[in-house]
Amino acid sequence: MPAYKAPLRDMRFLMNEVFDYPAHYAELSNGKDADPETVGAILEECAKFCQEVLSPLNLSGDDEGCHFSDNQVKTPKGFKEAYEQYVAGGWQGLSHPAEYGGQGLPMSLGLIKSEMMGTANWSFTMYPGLSLGAMNTIMQHASPELKNLYMPPLTEGRWTGTMCLTEPQCGTDLGQVKTRAEPQADGSYRITGTKIFISAGEHDFTDNIVHVVLARLPDAPPGTRGISLFIVPKVQVKADGSLGERNHVVCSAIEHKMGIKASATAVLNFEDSVGHMIAEPNKGLEAMFTFMNTARVGTAVQGIAHAELSYQGALAYAKERRSMRALSGKKEPEQVADALIYHADVRRMLLTQKAIAEGGRAMIYFAAQYSDHMTNSIVEGDQKKYKYWDDRLGFLTPILKGFLTEMGLEAANLGMQVFGGHGYIKEHGMEQIARDARIATLYEGTTGIQSLDLLGRKVLVMTRGKAVREFTGHIARFAMEQMGNSKVRGFATRLARLAAEWNVLTMRVMLAARKDRDAVGAASYHFLMYSGYVTMAYFWALQAAVAAKKLAEGGAEKKEFYKAKLYTAHFYFDHLLPRADGHATSITRPAKSLMKMPVDSFAFE
Amino acid sequence: MPAYKAPLRDMRFLMNEVFDYPAHYAELSNGKDADPETVGAILEECAKFCQEVLSPLNLSGDDEGCHFSDNQVKTPKGFKEAYEQYVAGGWQGLSHPAEYGGQGLPMSLGLIKSEMMGTANWSFTMYPGLSLGAMNTIMQHASPELKNLYMPPLTEGRWTGTMCLTEPQCGTDLGQVKTRAEPQADGSYRITGTKIFISAGEHDFTDNIVHVVLARLPDAPPGTRGISLFIVPKVQVKADGSLGERNHVVCSAIEHKMGIKASATAVLNFEDSVGHMIAEPNKGLEAMFTFMNTARVGTAVQGIAHAELSYQGALAYAKERRSMRALSGKKEPEQVADALIYHADVRRMLLTQKAIAEGGRAMIYFAAQYSDHMTNSIVEGDQKKYKYWDDRLGFLTPILKGFLTEMGLEAANLGMQVFGGHGYIKEHGMEQIARDARIATLYEGTTGIQSLDLLGRKVLVMTRGKAVREFTGHIARFAMEQMGNSKVRGFATRLARLAAEWNVLTMRVMLAARKDRDAVGAASYHFLMYSGYVTMAYFWALQAAVAAKKLAEGGAEKKEFYKAKLYTAHFYFDHLLPRADGHATSITRPAKSLMKMPVDSFAFE
Repeated sequence: MPAYKAPLRDMRFLMNEVFDYPAHYAELSNGKDADPETVGAILEECAKFCQEVLSPLNLSGDDEGCHFSDNQVKTPKGFKEAYEQYVAGGWQGLSHPAEYGGQGLPMSLGLIKSEMMGTANWSFTMYPGLSLGAMNTIMQHASPELKNLYMPPLTEGRWTGTMCLTEPQCGTDLGQVKTRAEPQADGSYRITGTKIFISAGEHDFTDNIVHVVLARLPDAPPGTRGISLFIVPKVQVKADGSLGERNHVVCSAIEHKMGIKASATAVLNFEDSVGHMIAEPNKGLEAMFTFMNTARVGTAVQGIAHAELSYQGALAYAKERRSMRALSGKKEPEQVADALIYHADVRRMLLTQKAIAEGGRAMIYFAAQYSDHMTNSIVEGDQKKYKYWDDRLGFLTPILKGFLTEMGLEAANLGMQVFGGHGYIKEHGMEQIARDARIATLYEGTTGIQSLDLLGRKVLVMTRGKAVREFTGHIARFAMEQMGNSKVRGFATRLARLAAEWNVLTMRVMLAARKDRDAVGAASYHFLMYSGYVTMAYFWALQAAVAAKKLAEGGAEKKEFYKAKLYTAHFYFDHLLPRADGHATSITRPAKSLMKMPVDSFAFE
Repeated sequence: MPAYKAPLRDMRFLMNEVFDYPAHYAELSNGKDADPETVGAILEECAKFCQEVLSPLNLSGDDEGCHFSDNQVKTPKGFKEAYEQYVAGGWQGLSHPAEYGGQGLPMSLGLIKSEMMGTANWSFTMYPGLSLGAMNTIMQHASPELKNLYMPPLTEGRWTGTMCLTEPQCGTDLGQVKTRAEPQADGSYRITGTKIFISAGEHDFTDNIVHVVLARLPDAPPGTRGISLFIVPKVQVKADGSLGERNHVVCSAIEHKMGIKASATAVLNFEDSVGHMIAEPNKGLEAMFTFMNTARVGTAVQGIAHAELSYQGALAYAKERRSMRALSGKKEPEQVADALIYHADVRRMLLTQKAIAEGGRAMIYFAAQYSDHMTNSIVEGDQKKYKYWDDRLGFLTPILKGFLTEMGLEAANLGMQVFGGHGYIKEHGMEQIARDARIATLYEGTTGIQSLDLLGRKVLVMTRGKAVREFTGHIARFAMEQMGNSKVRGFATRLARLAAEWNVLTMRVMLAARKDRDAVGAASYHFLMYSGYVTMAYFWALQAAVAAKKLAEGGAEKKEFYKAKLYTAHFYFDHLLPRADGHATSITRPAKSLMKMPVDSFAFE
């Protein structure tokens, strides 16, 4: 398993040189404490924890997996101790309010923390990650009493939380949820039903686990409009916050999965379990989705996490393993053969990984500022401002989640490929990265769901194309500004064309959808991937522009860093962006290529 | 795990309606026995064995894996018995000469047998598959004495064989092979060295294993021109063919791998092991490569095998799992939701799998006829004819192996994707298919090596573009013939343009390579994938043309089968072929986008 080294140089480049985080934080009402010095210290400290504590447990955690017996889960060796260090370091409450014991720093810092921790050990990071989802939901929707009871131990990490949505018969289609909630005389509810795929649903880290559960009231209307949201703690909580009786929540199994094996995925049986409603009756789904965009950006991080880790492993191997001679002549004449990194096709693979990791990181660090504005407007109680930023983040979210997790999987597979046959062997850890990365396109809404969310909901229904017009306006403006800059003119020209084409394609789907409602579904995946390639192209051109400026200013200490940004941008435009053309073509193909074949004609004996 | 059902209808369509196998077999000197009735009976019998014996062991074999202790391998439960049935059925010698106990049928039938068996259980099929490689090499290069000793038990399946090429320090770059061979007074050799990644290198199926080993004579020149080839049996063989003393060949470990876990991948230590030279001294690599094209087509089969099996699993699930309503209105109003197969994006995934499995099958069944001609000319001792067919097969081989294994991996991943989160859970078997499929782009020459073999060797060095001109000539002729056919005119027009473009791109790389030798390596992967997409387009258009003809003739019993071919061809041209455009663009980009970045600039701290 490659030992993780946090790419602090690249992170600082994005935060300080590309997106001006210091100015951004200075603008936020909860950003005053996030001065450059504090942020720098947090990054260093987090990197240290990831490199020294989390990274060494990644391969062993996969190898050992979680143990299940007597309805209990034992996490792999070292995980509980690592979690104790995580809690002691105050990492859980980094971006949550001081009144609950957090540090009250902006959301983006929490995201960057998750990126580092997730890259070092994604399985470990799932446990506190799910807590964050539960915390956000409780913080926003629960009564003051419930918040006072549950938020402090969650924020401090003394307890963890889960999100219980999926049931055996439904995941995507939550309208099919069957779990029931019976109101009791004392104002509480009794919850009965089975939830599956519950990450961190059971473990040995903490004394209590707070489940946030979707269920139906007895008189609830059918479908998605009849779902309510409940807190169901594993152990009941007394009015003074101390632990009471064990609740009837039983972990009846954990799943055997392809990867993220150190993360326990639980089947939870609720049987007359005591629960407390949060949010309005029958409005549970809306409440659950308040932070969906932020949560999905958190999952998008998985794409760059696995791309980065696999890249680090592949790069080290490509420098050290020697095979054949470079086509342009011996590069290491004193050696038996040239290192892999001198071969063009190995470079293509490495540069693909690098372009995905760094390009994706730029996309996420940009969106993270939207997320900061959004959470900040919640704190300020400014609904209008909240909507403004949530809309902007909402457009980017499916692109980030859908595109970056697909690309992360590709990058992880390329890391194996650089290792040749050795990539298939467990001890090198490269195949684990590919297995771990595989979940990312499936959970938190599959790529297909992200595609429909983007094209159907965010672009067509909600904004009739305006979301694309706005974002491409941003791109086009940048492109025009850069036309005079000889170092990036080529990128700018291409971007300007793509910004226009993106609108044309949106319009074409809109027109096609008037005649054939399947046109949206048929185009959605290609539209998502097209959007992803163009968005990443913009962020590569932006990084190139900043790098070119730094080089022009001269005197830069590390000129090579900026040059590498320009090389990688060229690679992206030459070797990855051209794929957008294929997707553009497919977007315009008639839906009947997909829809016409009768169900019975898919296979013949 | 999806229960495998052999797609006999599609196989018969290709053999009887598209490629006219009956006429082809009638032409071959060893094809007289392969009359349609015999072939039909073999297919049925093989399908039965695959469905009833091999398929049920696929998931359990993965789950259990191989056991290793005391230098011995125990295969998973049921595997040894399945192998006994395989031997009893006479399957091993299907395409090998009757004089050694085989059935003497054409090579293509053996390939189609491997396709079915490999789809049902790839891990199992690795054991007899490696034997075939050893048998081909021994049959072609060993002395009559060695052939008489080793070929009968191998052909009958009483023993198995291996190919021992890779060593810890080298796989691709066999010039680095270090294993030594010391000549002995009695004409034998003593072999010393370590070989790794030896599939079927140790197991409990048979009393003996015949290793075909690359090693160096004491006076051998360095590099690839100093490698010789030896038979090293696990147990020495007496002159009468009975087993003698145990040879010094020790299996010191088996690898822990991502997939194909029921296939033992051995580390073999040779220490003064008794070996017998086959082929000329120092010409071992050439000898080993005699059947490389055929072997690589055998690996290409893995692409369609995993695509087919994953498709069968995903299709069944898509018909039975219900989620949401179709965008164009309820399709199953009496159900809680519509089946997945009514959603456009799910159809995109299923049709991608189907297009890959059936398009790839067509490519392989076409190439298999070349393979028949090639092996037939060996039997006839016609070197000129051999070279003619080997050249043609040689051009297609890297396209088939490189492109189809990449596509097979994509298809296997899509099968998981159709299952949503359930795809990630072991019990459904979909994730196993993706893990098993992952090896295919790594072994028998990585995709990068296939790319260099295609563009560097087969297209540029060996034929200066003639290989492309010939194959595209074939395509263009077909396109012109079909211009008058309204059902396939669209495909024909597109194909005609692509046939021309393929030549232009070849020329452009050739010119670029004159100025910059890295141009070949930089373009190679994109050239391979481009070639794959265009080749598959041709075979889809061909299938569509045959289907359209059958429909026009009327009276076809199963009209829907032919219509499905036309639908799938439309899907391929609309949703997969457009990717070729992106590769075409990248082929023409300068090599410097890959080569210019200094090695030290790939990462900064």
